[in-house]
Amino acid sequence: MKIGVLTGGGDCPGLNAVIRSVVRKGTQEYGFEFVGLRDGWLGALRDKVVPLDIAAVRGILPRGGTILGSSRTNPFKHEDGVARIKDTLTAHGVDALVVIGGEDTLGAATELSRQGVPLVGVPKTIDNDVAGTDYTFGFDTAVGIATEAIDRLHTTAESHMRTLVVEVMGRHSGWIALHAGVAGGANVILVPERPFDIDQVCGWVKNRFRTNYAPIVVAAEGAVPKEGHVIVQDRALDEYGHVHLSGIGEWLAQEISRRTGTDARTTVLGHIQRGGTPSAFDRWLATRFGLHAADAVNDGAFGTMVALRGTEIVRVPLDETRGRTKVVNPSLYDEFEVFFG
Amino acid sequence: MKIGVLTGGGDCPGLNAVIRSVVRKGTQEYGFEFVGLRDGWLGALRDKVVPLDIAAVRGILPRGGTILGSSRTNPFKHEDGVARIKDTLTAHGVDALVVIGGEDTLGAATELSRQGVPLVGVPKTIDNDVAGTDYTFGFDTAVGIATEAIDRLHTTAESHMRTLVVEVMGRHSGWIALHAGVAGGANVILVPERPFDIDQVCGWVKNRFRTNYAPIVVAAEGAVPKEGHVIVQDRALDEYGHVHLSGIGEWLAQEISRRTGTDARTTVLGHIQRGGTPSAFDRWLATRFGLHAADAVNDGAFGTMVALRGTEIVRVPLDETRGRTKVVNPSLYDEFEVFFG
Amino acid sequence: MKIGVLTGGGDCPGLNAVIRSVVRKGTQEYGFEFVGLRDGWLGALRDKVVPLDIAAVRGILPRGGTILGSSRTNPFKHEDGVARIKDTLTAHGVDALVVIGGEDTLGAATELSRQGVPLVGVPKTIDNDVAGTDYTFGFDTAVGIATEAIDRLHTTAESHMRTLVVEVMGRHSGWIALHAGVAGGANVILVPERPFDIDQVCGWVKNRFRTNYAPIVVAAEGAVPKEGHVIVQDRALDEYGHVHLSGIGEWLAQEISRRTGTDARTTVLGHIQRGGTPSAFDRWLATRFGLHAADAVNDGAFGTMVALRGTEIVRVPLDETRGRTKVVNPSLYDEFEVFFG
Amino acid sequence: MKIGVLTGGGDCPGLNAVIRSVVRKGTQEYGFEFVGLRDGWLGALRDKVVPLDIAAVRGILPRGGTILGSSRTNPFKHEDGVARIKDTLTAHGVDALVVIGGEDTLGAATELSRQGVPLVGVPKTIDNDVAGTDYTFGFDTAVGIATEAIDRLHTTAESHMRTLVVEVMGRHSGWIALHAGVAGGANVILVPERPFDIDQVCGWVKNRFRTNYAPIVVAAEGAVPKEGHVIVQDRALDEYGHVHLSGIGEWLAQEISRRTGTDARTTVLGHIQRGGTPSAFDRWLATRFGLHAADAVNDGAFGTMVALRGTEIVRVPLDETRGRTKVVNPSLYDEFEVFFG
Repeated sequence: MKIGVLTGGGDCPGLNAVIRSVVRKGTQEYGFEFVGLRDGWLGALRDKVVPLDIAAVRGILPRGGTILGSSRTNPFKHEDGVARIKDTLTAHGVDALVVIGGEDTLGAATELSRQGVPLVGVPKTIDNDVAGTDYTFGFDTAVGIATEAIDRLHTTAESHMRTLVVEVMGRHSGWIALHAGVAGGANVILVPERPFDIDQVCGWVKNRFRTNYAPIVVAAEGAVPKEGHVIVQDRALDEYGHVHLSGIGEWLAQEISRRTGTDARTTVLGHIQRGGTPSAFDRWLATRFGLHAADAVNDGAFGTMVALRGTEIVRVPLDETRGRTKVVNPSLYDEFEVFFG
Repeated sequence: MKIGVLTGGGDCPGLNAVIRSVVRKGTQEYGFEFVGLRDGWLGALRDKVVPLDIAAVRGILPRGGTILGSSRTNPFKHEDGVARIKDTLTAHGVDALVVIGGEDTLGAATELSRQGVPLVGVPKTIDNDVAGTDYTFGFDTAVGIATEAIDRLHTTAESHMRTLVVEVMGRHSGWIALHAGVAGGANVILVPERPFDIDQVCGWVKNRFRTNYAPIVVAAEGAVPKEGHVIVQDRALDEYGHVHLSGIGEWLAQEISRRTGTDARTTVLGHIQRGGTPSAFDRWLATRFGLHAADAVNDGAFGTMVALRGTEIVRVPLDETRGRTKVVNPSLYDEFEVFFG
Repeated sequence: MKIGVLTGGGDCPGLNAVIRSVVRKGTQEYGFEFVGLRDGWLGALRDKVVPLDIAAVRGILPRGGTILGSSRTNPFKHEDGVARIKDTLTAHGVDALVVIGGEDTLGAATELSRQGVPLVGVPKTIDNDVAGTDYTFGFDTAVGIATEAIDRLHTTAESHMRTLVVEVMGRHSGWIALHAGVAGGANVILVPERPFDIDQVCGWVKNRFRTNYAPIVVAAEGAVPKEGHVIVQDRALDEYGHVHLSGIGEWLAQEISRRTGTDARTTVLGHIQRGGTPSAFDRWLATRFGLHAADAVNDGAFGTMVALRGTEIVRVPLDETRGRTKVVNPSLYDEFEVFFG
Repeated sequence: MKIGVLTGGGDCPGLNAVIRSVVRKGTQEYGFEFVGLRDGWLGALRDKVVPLDIAAVRGILPRGGTILGSSRTNPFKHEDGVARIKDTLTAHGVDALVVIGGEDTLGAATELSRQGVPLVGVPKTIDNDVAGTDYTFGFDTAVGIATEAIDRLHTTAESHMRTLVVEVMGRHSGWIALHAGVAGGANVILVPERPFDIDQVCGWVKNRFRTNYAPIVVAAEGAVPKEGHVIVQDRALDEYGHVHLSGIGEWLAQEISRRTGTDARTTVLGHIQRGGTPSAFDRWLATRFGLHAADAVNDGAFGTMVALRGTEIVRVPLDETRGRTKVVNPSLYDEFEVFFG
């Protein structure tokens, strides 16, 4: 049996760990043969297929990124996309796919599966917002990097008694902001799921200064103020081609400074949250996802994705997760309000 | 309402995060007053009670260890232990306890609870082997440190083409060994739950050299060979006063070297696994445990401990977890055999 | 003898290590008494004086920032600044000052010294551009953080085959950019001392893509293009009140993208470069600076600053370093051109 | 011109950085061709020669260890060693060698140079004890790892109010112990250059407990007690075949515990000090050493080694450094006594 592997969407620590473990398990235990499709769905559309044996995956466990390359190509935005993918698979004798990706990549996988392509999904996202799994790999690494950054910013904030705003990843969900904000001891945490009141934020900031400590405000990039608070921001295309807002961190620093009369600065963590060696947790999770994806292929459990539930890896129908973003539950967010201000 | 907090057993990253969050939530939300009992049960026996207000817990979130001190004192090994503890609580007007500790500390808490002391437990162990919770805080930090050490040892092993044996914590369970071994890409992982065959280990070592890579063997300190393989080891008292075996790492290096005719060295990670700043994951978990412990006290849910199930914090009767060690499931261990050798 | 200590300018890892060691050495060996002046020269102007004994400096060695606070206040921009400082010193019986700061803070110290205030300087700057010393503390920590960030960005760059531009600190000198760029394996390093040719930069970028690796461009925030290349940038006041250019990283990404037709992104490291625990090198250097500053005070060597020359700590007249910025030598920069492109 | 490169002795972070930069500079700037000799002098004796071009050194800058392998082979302990090396060089048309190694490897290089082999040396040692250079690469990484370990041990020591002894590398010199001990805020630092008085050590330990802080004792593995203090230790062959003492850390913990009646534990850092990715400082230094070694070969400056003096890379005759170990200067050690106890 010949299996094709592809990685789609933004890169994420742990992708290589999945590739390694699915190839190791599939080859050694089930006698599968593997090929890689380069650059996500692009490789499937354009017949960019590379060999992928055990030698190719040696030493990649601790490496960030993906040895297969990635792209945001959506096969359903290309004419004959499905047919071209099927042609590529037939031409190379590929019997099934292992598709490692986030919401968009798995969305395409779900549709391809419906149209008869045998495949197993592996959920991937820095943002932790894929429905159906407790956690995705990459998230723990991103939270760790953001937390370390917040640790560093505390001493600067206090030496100068100024507010430091940290803008972290999270366009549609506040998982990184919430976890890193709690772990880093932030005084304000702003997430897309809970539009904020800038007056309340400024109140928390002023309150913090009264204790002779300096405020750290952690904001997901998708955090938004409540209605009535006008934001003038840059609008830009994100990497998936959608319009998104940017600059919430900078806006917050300016508003806090203007409204409280105290100094405020911003740090935008950006790409350093998604690169580099995965944390031990992410290597563990990604390795298990790969092992179980090989099992799923062997069992013919196509149209499912592997997922974490508690400490178990389970299979979830791709159909069930389609189009659903896992957001931060209001009650979880409220747990931490005791630390605000 | 006045609450006493104590930390018992070996220190563990995240203890301070629990102390901080239980005090913040209890004080701000429920109007509790707090005191600390110094050095675990010792403080309860000897009336070592210190103030514990919000000012006392400022800035301790990222700090390892415990500001309350710890000890391995077992109140049931002291005459009138229970009576003396009750006297201390009465003398200071303490209405309930929050007891943060591992198997031994929570064991004593369970018995005290039966004898009428109102208390809530918070499970703590580097080793991750407390029953009733998916994970304990401190474990993720220990795994991260061990994984980074293994990462470092790979390059030394390969530069000299020798075996490096890494002995990690885990007397009764192999959680650290298994997680760090998988995350670090070890070629052999030895855990107490699965007595090993030294001939098989040497076979894996020799096999690894054939690929032109050098073997990394990760062994829990409690790993033991199968019957028939005699080990001459030092026997010593552990920190809880029990006899235990030590030196499995050194023994392995000697046997591997003797039996395969190749060079082998050992590194014993020791105390660096339990000290220092907690990982973001452990700060998150410890913070939530503290918040939910305050809720449990407020709800009068005495005789329970807080625990992690999936992504939820739940309450588990202390009685249910008493005397049970959570060990590595054989099927979980077997998942990773594809990487051995 | 009573000594006043102050820290001025931007915060920098190692400030607390200096404070600790000067207080330890001065108190234990020379019997000095110490006070702290809060927030740099501001405390001297406004009589904000705090006790500073051995208990106050316990445990601060590994902590970033400064327990004394800092500010950019220039006493010579305040009417009667010098007289007010002398009044504060007289009122508290302060016999001499230890002034820890960068170019601006030490510039004021030089002038105060000329006007009769007995003081010893300790050079401090993230940017490493204080003349008269091989290195300043804080620099090694900043380079380490920037290098780790570059390490992380490599895998993202290669997974997507895009250029990543990293903007690091350095308005007037390129030390951080050069050291971190070399250590991180950057393909282009841009420093203020060497105006760059954007066409050449784009040539290097295109060349890099030909090797199937992705380019990392490291730019000091003060890097500027050669005459004829127009930059439209935001202009803003820096923390010392001067006009400066910002946004070179963003500009570079846009130009590279526009001129080469390939994807390019920017990460601005910002404040995370200056906060948090100092590296071992910086703790060593800062500790030695503090010890030698105490010696200098004891020897009455006023009007000097301590400095590193090779592995020795020496004393340099403050007059000699006044107004001189230590920039990157052209021949040093040229050493690394073999790695460009 | 064809150049052979070899790495000898224990592995050390930065070896790959030297290999990469000498090959890049030599190939691109001077048109040299390169080959690698495997496993130190062993490759030269046994004709193990591998290609070494720019493709072979891509991506190795951040990797620990050495892609060329290493060994402790001394060519002068093999009959006809010199002749066999000359034969290997002749057979492969090698015109000159770049020899990267520590005292033993460079000692052999010095003698070979005298006997007519054109070569340039690059000093390498974790221990920083090669004479003629301010620092060697690998040292900063080792100090950083040891300092981080000490940071972690502080919280454990204080939670249990026990002494923690940390045994670090350094058989013949105390550089790692001194730098990491100072950076980590140790209370006792023991180095081979200064035999210690165990009574004084115990006095410092007791003194530390009086402040309500717990002692950290950092000992180089070669630290020895003064005459009259008998040590019963294991004696073993070190990796260079010499007899050496081991176990000073364990001995210290036992003596401190016995003499002071307080708990004391040991951690032996071991191999984790020498593996893994080099620090930014070490990558910078190793890269510059490689660049200047290529220059030296091009200039025909054979019989020299590159060395760091202040911020400059200079050439030092190998003859001058032969047989000299750079030890810790007594006056440097005494600088830090203010922190003891």
